[in-house]
Amino acid sequence: MTRIAIDAMGGDHAPFEIVAGAVWAAAEYGVALELVGKQDQIEECLDKIQKDGFLSPCGKMGRSRRVRVDVKSLDIKITHAAEIIEMGEAPGQAIRKKKNSSIVLTVNSVATGSSDALVAAGSTGAAMAASLFGLGRIPGIDRPAIAVTLPTMKKPVVVIDGGANSNCTPQMLRQFTIMGRVFAKNVLDIENPKTGIVNIGEESGKGNELAQSAYNILEEEKERFNFMGNIEGRELFLNHVDLVVCDGFVGNVVLKVTEGTANMLFKMLKNEFKSDFLGMIIGWLAKPFLKRIYERTNYEEFGGMLLLGVKGITVIAHGRSKAYAIKNAVRVARNAVETQVNQKIAECLEV
Amino acid sequence: MTRIAIDAMGGDHAPFEIVAGAVWAAAEYGVALELVGKQDQIEECLDKIQKDGFLSPCGKMGRSRRVRVDVKSLDIKITHAAEIIEMGEAPGQAIRKKKNSSIVLTVNSVATGSSDALVAAGSTGAAMAASLFGLGRIPGIDRPAIAVTLPTMKKPVVVIDGGANSNCTPQMLRQFTIMGRVFAKNVLDIENPKTGIVNIGEESGKGNELAQSAYNILEEEKERFNFMGNIEGRELFLNHVDLVVCDGFVGNVVLKVTEGTANMLFKMLKNEFKSDFLGMIIGWLAKPFLKRIYERTNYEEFGGMLLLGVKGITVIAHGRSKAYAIKNAVRVARNAVETQVNQKIAECLEV
Repeated sequence: MTRIAIDAMGGDHAPFEIVAGAVWAAAEYGVALELVGKQDQIEECLDKIQKDGFLSPCGKMGRSRRVRVDVKSLDIKITHAAEIIEMGEAPGQAIRKKKNSSIVLTVNSVATGSSDALVAAGSTGAAMAASLFGLGRIPGIDRPAIAVTLPTMKKPVVVIDGGANSNCTPQMLRQFTIMGRVFAKNVLDIENPKTGIVNIGEESGKGNELAQSAYNILEEEKERFNFMGNIEGRELFLNHVDLVVCDGFVGNVVLKVTEGTANMLFKMLKNEFKSDFLGMIIGWLAKPFLKRIYERTNYEEFGGMLLLGVKGITVIAHGRSKAYAIKNAVRVARNAVETQVNQKIAECLEV
Repeated sequence: MTRIAIDAMGGDHAPFEIVAGAVWAAAEYGVALELVGKQDQIEECLDKIQKDGFLSPCGKMGRSRRVRVDVKSLDIKITHAAEIIEMGEAPGQAIRKKKNSSIVLTVNSVATGSSDALVAAGSTGAAMAASLFGLGRIPGIDRPAIAVTLPTMKKPVVVIDGGANSNCTPQMLRQFTIMGRVFAKNVLDIENPKTGIVNIGEESGKGNELAQSAYNILEEEKERFNFMGNIEGRELFLNHVDLVVCDGFVGNVVLKVTEGTANMLFKMLKNEFKSDFLGMIIGWLAKPFLKRIYERTNYEEFGGMLLLGVKGITVIAHGRSKAYAIKNAVRVARNAVETQVNQKIAECLEV
């Protein structure tokens, strides 16, 4: 049985929502769990869930319903972690200093083979640093990167790096390309993904120094990478390419601006429909249509982002994740165990 | 009478849509024009408009209607320009080599005082380089920057730099802050704008080297700049701040991803409503509500971006601008003549 280790203390809604999402996933996907964090708090959460269940919308626009899980029937291991790494701490330092922190012990569980994959919703930097030191890098990869799928008109587009590395070299973007292509092929079934660079103009020679140098490097291996050139922010959503590479700063801005814009538009629409009585009726009629779009674009449906380039499976969930998002992140982790992307990246680099 | 110089040859839909938008604006806002470009082509456009008018939606979701303008009644000067700078050309080189290009002559018109402001929809880099060399920098400003307003839940947020400088130093971001604050105060009537840095986390110490250094510099003048710290992509739309600074690469990505996300969602909704007969009726009922939101977020309504830091008024319009967007860009230019933002930036730096 696949076992997923969860940092129960990471994220804005830890530990309850994290534990709730984990057991929900365990019941739904038939995985075993290792919950890592303050033992008494985790046990308290589990007792409460066993007794009362928990309220959760299935997707944000869905109505909340009470989810009931028979915790006692699940295969759950608890590993006590005395420390927690807070959002403001410098990741590298923190994971060296706090050897008993929940994120370090969660990674250890995968490193020692006790679990098959891990999910963490706390500090992205800490999850990445802990994974890098605990699991090790794949030879040939300088820095792990986060692969994320962006919702678009047709099929999702892979963005790499989604936020693991703020400062990148052109060679790192080349490595991201290799990893992103393996991800697109194995997770999204895209045989020879069209690849682009996030840039502020179409023409070569556009953009900052990083984008220009990366362009030249990828252009040299144009056929191998099915390299299509520069992609502007607007065109990310039009499926001209299957995969875009960028540094983690730009990638993270892309993801969060997409999320922010979508949230704003849905809120504006809601307010607009509320402005008069007729609007309320039309809004009510339109709700199922809006809901379908919302669900296609809502990060909670995607659950988590896979860290590529380390020898093991780390899924980084949104810091704001509640139970529903964590459930989906566990699904991402379970799928990653099946597809073994990182192993395939290693094989790809050996050749 | 205020005279606006227009590069009639710049942009994807030049010259017809540019000329059409310009004369539309002249008729609506009572400004005089100087149209710069190939004389025969411009005259042909004007004749056609005088005879047949032109089709234009008022905003993208609006139905196209035929706009009629009595061109003969307007104050229009034509300046012949034999050359055009294409999108792919290196801007600095191109403006030095093509001294008779439409963008260089358009800038000249403002530099010599023949016009009060200019509008250009072609290559942003060429418009910026031509303005920099033709109009000159404001002392104390190393590089001009583009100020753009981003649509949000409540009042617009100023983003600077919107795409003029791909590679920036922390000191440039400090100068952008000064310019952005003058813009926010004089154009948007925000007395003491709350200022932030676009970043990928809230805490200080987050982000790339540029964002970290700029944070430290702005933090030193926290009170002067009303500096609120880092703003994540998602929070740009929540009106926590009135102004955000970033390099032009990130700023341009923010703008284009916002535009791309909004376009995608509206298209998805349209498709969703089309999926069955009931949906078509509900979609028809919901259209006025959607339209109001669309107009609040559509770049065509905003028209153009003001270039700050040069001794004169340059408005850079979207490369895809059609007549309606150009009309709005001329409005931005006319307003800038009234508010004299660049002059106020110069005064602010003299103190």
